[in-house]
Amino acid sequence: MDKGLLFVISGPSGTGKGTICKELVKTMDIVMSVSETTRAPRDGEIQGKNYFFVTKEAFQTKIQEDGFIEYAEVYGNYYGTPKEFILNKIESGQDVVLEIDFQGALQVKEKFPNGIFIFILPPSMKELRQRIVKRGTESEKSFKERFNNALKEISYIDKYDYCVINDEVECAATKVKTIIEAEHYKVTEEIYSQIYKYKEELLCSTPR
Amino acid sequence: MDKGLLFVISGPSGTGKGTICKELVKTMDIVMSVSETTRAPRDGEIQGKNYFFVTKEAFQTKIQEDGFIEYAEVYGNYYGTPKEFILNKIESGQDVVLEIDFQGALQVKEKFPNGIFIFILPPSMKELRQRIVKRGTESEKSFKERFNNALKEISYIDKYDYCVINDEVECAATKVKTIIEAEHYKVTEEIYSQIYKYKEELLCSTPR
Repeated sequence: MDKGLLFVISGPSGTGKGTICKELVKTMDIVMSVSETTRAPRDGEIQGKNYFFVTKEAFQTKIQEDGFIEYAEVYGNYYGTPKEFILNKIESGQDVVLEIDFQGALQVKEKFPNGIFIFILPPSMKELRQRIVKRGTESEKSFKERFNNALKEISYIDKYDYCVINDEVECAATKVKTIIEAEHYKVTEEIYSQIYKYKEELLCSTPR
Repeated sequence: MDKGLLFVISGPSGTGKGTICKELVKTMDIVMSVSETTRAPRDGEIQGKNYFFVTKEAFQTKIQEDGFIEYAEVYGNYYGTPKEFILNKIESGQDVVLEIDFQGALQVKEKFPNGIFIFILPPSMKELRQRIVKRGTESEKSFKERFNNALKEISYIDKYDYCVINDEVECAATKVKTIIEAEHYKVTEEIYSQIYKYKEELLCSTPR
């Protein structure tokens, strides 16, 4: 059986990458990795669905046990992707999508060079600014921090394989789905073994 | 303006890659390169549409003038892809699809490392054999030659980026279309220059 593929989706906060990931999970055979975080839940966020909300101590223990594929400290909070879940899913043939920032993506790339890295861009910086303002959960300080971080995040785009501009969320989600589907047609080692089967078949059926 | 992309489609004869290419040209904004050949036209083949049918002398002159992106001798006949057409189209932002065998594809890959190489596989060798028989244009000798060549052709699949099994031609064409679309979302140098525009915009609009 073919292994599953690992898709990593990043982009500055406010680009709508979370909405795109939700759409993927809803309409494709792909599961989303649930991260662990030490930050406080936002209104409406559910333990085990949006994040596993854990204490700083629990998080640090897991770091020492090498239990994360990647982790990072962002705005004073820890975020990390538990290793076991991803490995099990991929091994069983299930595609997985990770929504993480560029710091995490770079760590994942080291461990999973075969992962597919997709960057979501806002249609413009003006639009990004408006989206962060609209979200309305940011203090003035954290707003500036996020906005400046967007500049840094975007400069890492050359580490990604694909780039999708999110001007309209359904349209952007469709584009990401196209990428996911196309990646399944890549020539891989599984294809080679299929080819050997073809060859044996050929040797048995060549006309004399 | 973005440059066009060059897609190269190969596969053993009888895999239906010609039908797939026709479907692409009919339904997408992509043009097909018309090859020059010294072989005799088959029934129904039109000069300038299926091939430019030329004399051996004319072909050899063009080789000396470096007028081909690739050329090859197959079954005693020359086939070649005129360089000028492809370069003009790509430069003007137009995608181009080339239907050529692995020998030609390897030559194109040297000159266009950014080309996207797609291999079309038959669902099985038994099926391939039936398809060659059905085509009915082959003498017994050329049938054997084509069938043995299929083995050789398939062993070059590792030089290709993608692989699509043609069990049903419309379905296979849709898969190739998905690949073509996804390739347009690849991170490229054009994206970097877009990013610089974002940065300038950001510097003008950062809240103080």
